[in-house]
Amino acid sequence: MKSTLSGTSVIGYARGTGSTAAGQAVHAASGAKLEPVYLSATPEEVDQAIDLAAAAFPAYSALSGKERGAFLRAIAEQIEGVVDDIAERGVMETGLPDARLRGETVRTTGQLRLFAALIEEGSWVDARIEKAQPERQPLPKADIRSMLRPLGPVAVFCASNFPMAFSVAGGDTAAALAAGCPVVVVAHHAHPGVAEIVAQAVMRAAVVTNMPEGVFSLLYGGGRAVGVPVVQHPVIQAVGFTGSRSGGTALMKAAASRPQPIPVYAEMSSVNPVVILPGALERGEAALAEAFFNSLTLGVGQFCTNPGLIFLPEGSGFVFLDRLKQLVGTSMPGVMLSEGIAKAYVDAVEAFAGTPGVETIARSAAPNGNGPGAAAVFSVSVRRFLEEDLLQGEMFGPAALIVRGTLEEIAATIPELEGQLTATIHGTEAELTAHSSLVQSLANKAGRVIFNGFPTGVEVCHAMVHGGPYPSTSDGRSTSVGTMSIHRFVRAVCYQSFPDSCLAPELQDGNPLGIWRMVDGELGR
Amino acid sequence: MKSTLSGTSVIGYARGTGSTAAGQAVHAASGAKLEPVYLSATPEEVDQAIDLAAAAFPAYSALSGKERGAFLRAIAEQIEGVVDDIAERGVMETGLPDARLRGETVRTTGQLRLFAALIEEGSWVDARIEKAQPERQPLPKADIRSMLRPLGPVAVFCASNFPMAFSVAGGDTAAALAAGCPVVVVAHHAHPGVAEIVAQAVMRAAVVTNMPEGVFSLLYGGGRAVGVPVVQHPVIQAVGFTGSRSGGTALMKAAASRPQPIPVYAEMSSVNPVVILPGALERGEAALAEAFFNSLTLGVGQFCTNPGLIFLPEGSGFVFLDRLKQLVGTSMPGVMLSEGIAKAYVDAVEAFAGTPGVETIARSAAPNGNGPGAAAVFSVSVRRFLEEDLLQGEMFGPAALIVRGTLEEIAATIPELEGQLTATIHGTEAELTAHSSLVQSLANKAGRVIFNGFPTGVEVCHAMVHGGPYPSTSDGRSTSVGTMSIHRFVRAVCYQSFPDSCLAPELQDGNPLGIWRMVDGELGR
Repeated sequence: MKSTLSGTSVIGYARGTGSTAAGQAVHAASGAKLEPVYLSATPEEVDQAIDLAAAAFPAYSALSGKERGAFLRAIAEQIEGVVDDIAERGVMETGLPDARLRGETVRTTGQLRLFAALIEEGSWVDARIEKAQPERQPLPKADIRSMLRPLGPVAVFCASNFPMAFSVAGGDTAAALAAGCPVVVVAHHAHPGVAEIVAQAVMRAAVVTNMPEGVFSLLYGGGRAVGVPVVQHPVIQAVGFTGSRSGGTALMKAAASRPQPIPVYAEMSSVNPVVILPGALERGEAALAEAFFNSLTLGVGQFCTNPGLIFLPEGSGFVFLDRLKQLVGTSMPGVMLSEGIAKAYVDAVEAFAGTPGVETIARSAAPNGNGPGAAAVFSVSVRRFLEEDLLQGEMFGPAALIVRGTLEEIAATIPELEGQLTATIHGTEAELTAHSSLVQSLANKAGRVIFNGFPTGVEVCHAMVHGGPYPSTSDGRSTSVGTMSIHRFVRAVCYQSFPDSCLAPELQDGNPLGIWRMVDGELGR
Repeated sequence: MKSTLSGTSVIGYARGTGSTAAGQAVHAASGAKLEPVYLSATPEEVDQAIDLAAAAFPAYSALSGKERGAFLRAIAEQIEGVVDDIAERGVMETGLPDARLRGETVRTTGQLRLFAALIEEGSWVDARIEKAQPERQPLPKADIRSMLRPLGPVAVFCASNFPMAFSVAGGDTAAALAAGCPVVVVAHHAHPGVAEIVAQAVMRAAVVTNMPEGVFSLLYGGGRAVGVPVVQHPVIQAVGFTGSRSGGTALMKAAASRPQPIPVYAEMSSVNPVVILPGALERGEAALAEAFFNSLTLGVGQFCTNPGLIFLPEGSGFVFLDRLKQLVGTSMPGVMLSEGIAKAYVDAVEAFAGTPGVETIARSAAPNGNGPGAAAVFSVSVRRFLEEDLLQGEMFGPAALIVRGTLEEIAATIPELEGQLTATIHGTEAELTAHSSLVQSLANKAGRVIFNGFPTGVEVCHAMVHGGPYPSTSDGRSTSVGTMSIHRFVRAVCYQSFPDSCLAPELQDGNPLGIWRMVDGELGR
C-alpha cells in the first residue's frame, strides 16, 4: 500500500494529534482488528477545523466555477492515484468485494467530474435579471438580479454502506464543494482507513490547486464527541448525512435546537415498495422473481434502494413465489458491512418472522441461513400489514416482505405508507394507463417512480432524484444524488441597483460567462 | 358594502357554523368593536377543511398549468369586483389608508396573474430528461425524467401587516395554488372582515372555474384552537407564515414535533442593516436623511423591510443627523395596525431608550411623541452594540438605531449580525469596489443586497429574493415574494423507464407544451 495511515484527523493542511482512541477498524470477514488505532479529534481540533473552514469560505466561495472545477477534477485524479490502496483497505474494512470498491471509486470520481462540468459551464446558478424601468408608473422598477450563492461551511457524515460514493469525497462533499462551501467531514468508524486514504487525496488536490486552507477537513470521533459538536457549531450552515433513521433524526434534533437552526439533509430509511400488476406476472413469473432476487441481494441488500416491500395481487403469482423460494433457499449468506449492521439485520428479520400473521416464504437453506447476510422473504395480508407498524420498518439487508391483497386493497394501502426513496410498479403500458391514480399515489410517496425495473442502481445524472418524503429523507425537497443535489447547499441572493462592475460575472450585462439566464422573464444566453 | 359578512369559516364550498366566539375586529383608529362577531372553527370543521383539501389534491394537482392559471386569474377578477369593500373594511380594521388598501389589492391581483402566467407557460417545473442508453458499458443507462411536483395541502397564515398581499389570497396562497397545492388559510384576528371578503371571492372563483371542492378553505380561530392543529394535521405538507419571531418559531416547533416533520416558511423579523460609506455622505447628507426617514416611516414603519439599523462612520454625518432630528421631531405619530403591535412598539422603543450607552437622537415632538406609531432614532457605539443582544432586536415600527464606529469596526460587526431579509450599502461605485469583502459579508447575511437605495418596496418579479438566513426567515433557502417562491411548495420527482404516453406532458418526448427543458444536459425547447 502506497498510502501511510497515521490514525489522525486531517485539519486543513495539517494533521491532528487526537487524544483518546476513537477505535480501530475491524476486518469485516474475520473480525480481526486492523491497524492503526484511530484517535478522536480533540474539542480544540474540532474548533480548529471549523474555524479554518470559516476562514476559507470568503475566498473559496468567491472563486470562479472554473477554479472550483479544477479542484474537483484534481480530487478525482488524486483518488485515481490511490485506487489500489482504496480497494485493498476497503475490502478488509467493509467486506465488500474488490470490484465493488473499484466500481464505487469510479462512481465517486465520475460524480466529482460531473459537478466540475456543471460549475465550469455555470448556468446552474439560476441567474435572473430584471432590468430597471425608471419610468414605470405608478412606481419605478429597480434593477434586480439574483443568483444562487453557497450557504457556508457544511458538515458531511460518511455512510457505512458507501465507503466511497457517500463518504469523504462522495456525493455530499462533491455537491457542497461545487456550490462553494468548505466541507468538514466526520469519518465513519467502520472504514476509517479508506477515509484517511481519500482525505489525503483531497488534501493533496487542495494544495496542488492552491485552495485556501480549511476548504476541507476530516475528523475522527464518535457522535457525541465530534458529530453533534460539529452540527451545533455556529459556523456550520448545513449537514449532509446517509445512514440510519435514529442517526439522522438525532442530527435533525441537534440542528433544530441550535440558536440558528440549519438544514439537515439526512438520507435515512426506505423500504422501496414494489407493486406487481397482473400483466407483469403474465409476462413471465420466473424471470420477474429472478430480477427481484438479484435486486434484493445486490450488495448483501445493503442499499437504501433495496426493494423490501412487494405488493402482490392475491391468488396469483405462484410461480413467482416458487422461483423465489428456490433462489432464496439456495442462496449463500454474504458478509455484511459491520458487526452492528449484521446484528441489527438478524434482529429485524427475527422480529418480522415472529409477528403474528407473517408467513415465512423463503429462507436460505445454508448452515448459517438464519444468520447475518442471509436472504429471507416473508408474506402477510394487507390487513395485518396495516395493523402492525413494525411491518413498515426496514430490515437493512437482503430481506423483503410480500403483502397480499386485492388490487383495490393494494391501491388503498399506498397512501398509508411512509415516505420512500423509490416506488416501483410492474405491469403493461395499458395497466399503467388504467392505474394512473395508483401511479400518482406512488409519486406522492417517493422521489423516484420506476416502471418494470428494480430500484437498486441509482444513475448519477441531471434528472436523478434520490430523495423522498420523510422518513426516507429529513427533507423531501432534496436529492442526494445527481446535479440537483447542489441545491441543498445554496440559497438565492438578489442584488438591487448594483453597478455592473460590482456584480458577479454571472449577473453582468454582457454575460461574460455565456451562461443561460432569465432576463426580464425570458430564458436565453 | 356589497359583501355580506357572516363571521364564519369557509369550508370548501360551504360555510362553517363555529362554536365559541373567536373575537371581533377592532376599529384601528377609534378602538370601537366592529360587527360581526367571528366564530372559531370547531375541531370538526378544521378536520373537514383539511379532509376536503386532501380529497381535492389528486384532482387539483393533476390539472394543467393552463387550468390552474385560469383559477388564479378568476380569483384576481373576483377580488377586483370587491375592491371597494376591501378598502372600506380594511381601513377600519387596519388603520391603513384607503390608497394603501387599494394599492395592496393591485399587488395581490398582480401576484395572482404573475403566477398564472408562470404556470401557463410551464417551464418552471424544471423538466429534465435523460434518455436511455441501453448499449452503455459497463451498465446500460435507464430513461430518467424529472419535474417539480406539488407537496400536498398547504397551510397559510394571514399576516397582520399585509391584509391583502400576505393574507387570504396573498403571495403564499398564490404560490401554493400555482404549484398545485390546495390551501387552508388561517385568518388573522386583526382583519377578519377583509379575510372573509377575499375568501368569498376565492370561493366564487373556484366554483366558476370548476375547481375540486377543498382547493381552498378559510378558518377563523386562535393559534391554540386552530393554528397549531392545522400545522400538526398529518395531511398538511407545508406552512406559509408572515409575522413575529415568537409566532414563527412556535409553528416551527409544532411542525418539527410531528411524526412526519414538514417545512415551515416563516418570514419573521429583520432589522435590515444599512451601511453608509463616506462617499454617500459627500453626495448630500440632507437628501440621504430624507430618503432614510421616508423609508423608516413608510406605513408607520410596519414593514418587514423597515431599515432599523444604520451603520454610520464615526466623526461624520452631522448634517445627516441634524436633518434626521428635524424630520423625526416634526413628524406626527401614525395609527398602528393593532393594539398589540402598538404596545409592543412602545415597549421596544422604551427598552432601547433605557439601555446604557444608547443615546436618543430624535423623537417626535408631538403631544403623543412617545406613544404608538411615533418615530424615534437612537444611537450607540459599535462596542456597546456588540455587548447588548437586545440592540440587535426589532422595534417593529418607525424606529431605528444608528451604530457608530470606524469603517473597520463596522466591517467587523457585520458577521456578528443575525440573518436579515435585506442589507443595504450607500456609497460610490469606487467604494463598492474597494469594499467588496464588506459586500460579500452583507450578502452572507441577507437575501437582498441594495446599493444606494432603501429596503422598503419589494418588487414582485422573477429575480426577487424576499428571504434570508434565520431568524429573518425559518428557511433561508426560500423567498416569499416573486416567482421563485413557488419552489417552497414543490419537490422533484423522477420517473424511470416510463412509456411516453404515461408521462406528464412536460416530460413527453414531443414536448407538447413547448416548455424549456434540459435534455441530456442541454437546455432547449
